[in-house]
Amino acid sequence: MLKQAQDLDKDFMSKEITSRKQDYSQWYNDLIIKSGLADYSAVRGCMVIKPYGFALWENMRDVLDKMFKDTGHQNAYFPLFVPKSLFEKEEQNAEGFAKECAVVTHYRLKVNPDKKGALMVDPESKLEEELIIRPTSEAIIWNTYKSWIQSYRDLPLLINQWANVVRWEMRTRLFLRTAEFLWQEGHTAHATSEEAVAETRQMLEVYAEFAEQWMAMPVIKGVKSINERFAGAVDTYCIEALMQDGKALQAGTSHFLGQNFAKAFDVKFSDKQNKQDYVWATSWGVSTRLIGALVMAHSDDDGLVLPPKLAPIQVVIVPIYKGDDQKKVVDDTVSEMMKELKAAGIKVKYDDNENSRPGWKFAEYEMKGVPVRIGIGARDIENKMVEVARRDTKEKMNMPIEGLAVNIAKLLHAIQEHIYNKAFSYRETHITRADTWDDFVDLLDNKGGFISAHWDGTGETEEKIKELTKATIRCIPLEKEPEEGACILTGKTSEQRVLFARAY
Amino acid sequence: MLKQAQDLDKDFMSKEITSRKQDYSQWYNDLIIKSGLADYSAVRGCMVIKPYGFALWENMRDVLDKMFKDTGHQNAYFPLFVPKSLFEKEEQNAEGFAKECAVVTHYRLKVNPDKKGALMVDPESKLEEELIIRPTSEAIIWNTYKSWIQSYRDLPLLINQWANVVRWEMRTRLFLRTAEFLWQEGHTAHATSEEAVAETRQMLEVYAEFAEQWMAMPVIKGVKSINERFAGAVDTYCIEALMQDGKALQAGTSHFLGQNFAKAFDVKFSDKQNKQDYVWATSWGVSTRLIGALVMAHSDDDGLVLPPKLAPIQVVIVPIYKGDDQKKVVDDTVSEMMKELKAAGIKVKYDDNENSRPGWKFAEYEMKGVPVRIGIGARDIENKMVEVARRDTKEKMNMPIEGLAVNIAKLLHAIQEHIYNKAFSYRETHITRADTWDDFVDLLDNKGGFISAHWDGTGETEEKIKELTKATIRCIPLEKEPEEGACILTGKTSEQRVLFARAY
Repeated sequence: MLKQAQDLDKDFMSKEITSRKQDYSQWYNDLIIKSGLADYSAVRGCMVIKPYGFALWENMRDVLDKMFKDTGHQNAYFPLFVPKSLFEKEEQNAEGFAKECAVVTHYRLKVNPDKKGALMVDPESKLEEELIIRPTSEAIIWNTYKSWIQSYRDLPLLINQWANVVRWEMRTRLFLRTAEFLWQEGHTAHATSEEAVAETRQMLEVYAEFAEQWMAMPVIKGVKSINERFAGAVDTYCIEALMQDGKALQAGTSHFLGQNFAKAFDVKFSDKQNKQDYVWATSWGVSTRLIGALVMAHSDDDGLVLPPKLAPIQVVIVPIYKGDDQKKVVDDTVSEMMKELKAAGIKVKYDDNENSRPGWKFAEYEMKGVPVRIGIGARDIENKMVEVARRDTKEKMNMPIEGLAVNIAKLLHAIQEHIYNKAFSYRETHITRADTWDDFVDLLDNKGGFISAHWDGTGETEEKIKELTKATIRCIPLEKEPEEGACILTGKTSEQRVLFARAY
Repeated sequence: MLKQAQDLDKDFMSKEITSRKQDYSQWYNDLIIKSGLADYSAVRGCMVIKPYGFALWENMRDVLDKMFKDTGHQNAYFPLFVPKSLFEKEEQNAEGFAKECAVVTHYRLKVNPDKKGALMVDPESKLEEELIIRPTSEAIIWNTYKSWIQSYRDLPLLINQWANVVRWEMRTRLFLRTAEFLWQEGHTAHATSEEAVAETRQMLEVYAEFAEQWMAMPVIKGVKSINERFAGAVDTYCIEALMQDGKALQAGTSHFLGQNFAKAFDVKFSDKQNKQDYVWATSWGVSTRLIGALVMAHSDDDGLVLPPKLAPIQVVIVPIYKGDDQKKVVDDTVSEMMKELKAAGIKVKYDDNENSRPGWKFAEYEMKGVPVRIGIGARDIENKMVEVARRDTKEKMNMPIEGLAVNIAKLLHAIQEHIYNKAFSYRETHITRADTWDDFVDLLDNKGGFISAHWDGTGETEEKIKELTKATIRCIPLEKEPEEGACILTGKTSEQRVLFARAY
């Protein structure tokens, strides 16, 4: 699609993206496809992550991976398959995921005798026991931990896995909800409940720091209500972000699993006094869904807006010239600039592709959300200046070529900050208190965002509110403000407000 | 297993590994398990890659990834699943992999009414079309390329994917042959046959350079005979390594696919003259199998021997002390040493775990193949010296603490070189010419290694030789020495020697 558009001019290009106002959902899809982040695939509910999208994921992954390692975790890799008998051992978890499981039943194809050139599943290759494709890896991992943990000396066991998982979703959306997705899942084992809770909280902090400092996306830290809790968890901690359409998005979860999996898989350890006890567990994960969150948090009707700290290309340089002589002068100057920028750790691309005009390139990199664009022509070089445009505010400015790297580094820093601040002030103006049911419904329908309201603490009320409004409890914020009140639906007593929202 | 051994002493430890002489195959398995590289899993034919093994894989992956990017490739991600109708489109490829395919037929589980707490596959969730778990991704990728390639401007398309793949093998071995494994697969599209062949050869060179410069493992570059060619390829180039038991191991392959996949998936492009033609393709891959190769190429009866350039830990420091006062003196000195070593880019670990004795640690890091061990006690500090032991030759030497980092860096370099040279001279003395059938069989049975012999160029002869001796043609070496001769089996004329071997 992008490729075909190469000969179209800028005006026509920009018309091709649906605006947020017109159709937010279509705007999102257009953006993902046209910016080259991802593509649909021939497999129901699965997508192709294109090179530009994968480069973004690699940047996110590398930062997170370092944060995990800095907090003492190691990576490992466990099988894609979970035998059904293991999968069903932790009942809550198994039932929670049962409806979304892709199941391998056979291990061989053979030539189809009735149809030339076709293959068929060989009925003689039926597996004795079906294999579930991991929707999450607690079962296979805890079955393994059983043989790795005997004594307190083996604890804590702090392991993370980068992997693909499959959850057979009926309604899918690029990055936000796909049948297969990429993620990381941490699985840790501890000697005490306190230590496991501390780990759960620590990883929540890691996620929050990543979301805010790297993705420039403010998040609210909280605990899930029972209905929204991970299947098999004692407590699910989460970070919740707000998208530009006023809907919430769960950006990461960290689960305190208690001794549920240790009991299901019989994982005991002997403590210093040689007493046996079950191990305490946590698990935590974020996925390629974060790319969807990143896109929706910052982008505009002209394309992506990427935070400089994660952008695959931070600066693009577009030459403007007539004829080979001018081109040579520009090339030489840019060559020096590139060296300087790269030496300063800036990811810079020089797009001197002769098949496209500067105007087309401007629109293209706007679409791709490259934070800074530098335009440079022969006259600029005479003046020892370049034209610099920032993606977030669309501001243009002239900068001296002398000392460019320092000024660009400062600008990238300012952009990162500005993007965060913009998202933060949007989020702050979209947390609204509601004290009556009518207000609650009105806010959901006409303003969106998080609604801070009292709730009687029961799953039934939560379910009822969801049925009536499609809003769910996003979290019970960790920053508590104890306050007596009456449940927004039932009027029963409540001790704290919780955050409701419609969500992705 | 390792954990339980923590209280056992060195002598007992070393007795637990089977020697190569006694049982090479058991030695290999013992090594993998005891060094903590991997573990068996509850899933038939699948293994768990443990943190130490995964750290090794990460190092290998990072180096290769950089080499791919430096040669202009980008990473992307394609679905795990291949719909059967796509899978069978390129017939040769489909038939080649049909017997090893894990097949997803259902997408849901439900509660088993006949068995409390158990789940069963929901028969109502049967897929209309079965999904194959990728054994390799040509089909799903070329189906995608169809919409990405229209014009010569879209070429070359240079994409790589890091992924898990599944090939249902009946006889599996840790790392060497597992049902699921991790790998990278490059898939490129080109405007001309020449360009595609050049890409195929370039990636073969990348693999050879990686094997020799990083893994310290000499390889022979060659082309596969028809019988050993990748299903769907026009030509398969390969690198072949030799293990210490005289068996060969295919370490990487790079395929020139001609227009086979372009035709099967109808991928055409228009050239500068607006003429339509099918695209030319390559694919190339290496996998976690390389870890098996690395282990077998260098290790000895005491454990792994890892090349410094890939070792997760390059230097381990073991303190030797009595009482807290000595410990403090050692800690302080080591703290300074660590800073210096890390500043020099050396991966160093200080093992001051008080639960194990120095002797146990020495054996443990020998087992793990850490290239350099430094022992340091209070008296060493007085003498301003440390004891340094190298893993490859078992040599011990004293080194001044002053300027340690420089000397350790030199030593790591020397170890890397020594390991390579050792493997190289073994390989050179194990390429033997055979000119009679009796010699051929005798060499296979009593010496092993590569047998350089004449072959009449037919698949039948190759098959017959395999039946009679279990030896296969590993490759037709790229460094040709044209020589008239008579086929070792049939006596028919031959123009070049090829390399036979028994292989993993």
